[in-house]
Amino acid sequence: MEDPGKEQVPIKENLIRTVVLCSGGIDSTVGLYWAHRHHEVVAGISFNYGAKHGERELPFAVAHCRKLKIPHQTIELSFIRDLFSSALLLSGNEIPDGRYEAENMRQTVVPFRNGIMLAAAAGYAESVGATHLLIGAHAGDPSGDREIYPDCREDFMSAMNEAVKRGTYAQIEILRPLIAKTKAEIVALGAELGVDFSQTWSCYKGGEIHCGTCSTCIERREAFAIAEVSDPTLCE
Amino acid sequence: MEDPGKEQVPIKENLIRTVVLCSGGIDSTVGLYWAHRHHEVVAGISFNYGAKHGERELPFAVAHCRKLKIPHQTIELSFIRDLFSSALLLSGNEIPDGRYEAENMRQTVVPFRNGIMLAAAAGYAESVGATHLLIGAHAGDPSGDREIYPDCREDFMSAMNEAVKRGTYAQIEILRPLIAKTKAEIVALGAELGVDFSQTWSCYKGGEIHCGTCSTCIERREAFAIAEVSDPTLCE
Repeated sequence: MEDPGKEQVPIKENLIRTVVLCSGGIDSTVGLYWAHRHHEVVAGISFNYGAKHGERELPFAVAHCRKLKIPHQTIELSFIRDLFSSALLLSGNEIPDGRYEAENMRQTVVPFRNGIMLAAAAGYAESVGATHLLIGAHAGDPSGDREIYPDCREDFMSAMNEAVKRGTYAQIEILRPLIAKTKAEIVALGAELGVDFSQTWSCYKGGEIHCGTCSTCIERREAFAIAEVSDPTLCE
Repeated sequence: MEDPGKEQVPIKENLIRTVVLCSGGIDSTVGLYWAHRHHEVVAGISFNYGAKHGERELPFAVAHCRKLKIPHQTIELSFIRDLFSSALLLSGNEIPDGRYEAENMRQTVVPFRNGIMLAAAAGYAESVGATHLLIGAHAGDPSGDREIYPDCREDFMSAMNEAVKRGTYAQIEILRPLIAKTKAEIVALGAELGVDFSQTWSCYKGGEIHCGTCSTCIERREAFAIAEVSDPTLCE
């Protein structure tokens, strides 16, 4: 006879125990659904660092975790908003219009943001018994946004992976299942995994609807067009 | 004639622009005084992560920076207190007595604490135009505390240094000038640099005065005895 005191929860056997970094944008949302299919997702975590678009994005991260019955935590990084300078932040200058280009996009860099988020996620993962972190980093588009953000580059990511692995008992590893994919391929994968794209946010400006003219809006629209998926979100 | 509008501040020429991680403990305080002699110290920064001894330690970090006329910032890492588990935290179990030993000290580990502090410090340093971070890591004592804390090990520190360097425009480097020194040698250096040790805190328990029985208290008392420096702090 079964012990009636034993909690009856479905257990996915022999699966990788993963914490997923979820922003509410397209990449990390598709990453979350991918992980939900292939891993035991211990938690989804989001970071509140005072981004202009944070209030638009974060509720979507929460909504997707709720839909998939994955615990969600928001990690407050208020020191970034208070002490760092970047056009991406509520405390910063205006977001520039136009495509990703070194000249206008460098002002949207939040210094070492990926390093800070991955470090906080690693400590959290160790605390909750996870062995892997999943981040929705991707191959970038031809305009070369990965060259603009030093903490998106390959040599940063491999060193950070090593630091997280060496600095934790569980030898936590950073996974980037989307790293070889273009944004369009990520949209196609998301459609296949049943992601409701109306519940995702991209625009850096953080208005009521997508502006359609900032670098991420341009990138988003092109990706949906190439993937031949219809984008259910409106833009100005 | 001098331009009367020009600000008259003493400038240290050709010096390394450094942000120093200051906890208010012995190692980082000696590191701060060392940096003040050899570098242009852009800021001292402390982290509030809900450590039991935080309220004792942090005011000393502030006091030393004020004495040396160095700007000071406290970075709030409240998510560590709220979400992580460790006996070192206000939210955790009791601090164990006795020397550093794997068995009882593992419960005082705050998961990936050094990784999180260094990542936040790197982003801050990039924001304020510094090129180096200084952390008071040292050689450890014979009881091998560096083996207990994975984020104190050499292979973690070298990977983290690489991650910070690759992930920032300024290619920020992590400096550890005390890394080859024992705690006793650090006390001797501090005495030479004029550090007022009455303004430092070591005890993990965070009572009114040092307990004298926890691992850091034992280590502190031995270090002063070996260095033949008198410790001006009281203990129970």
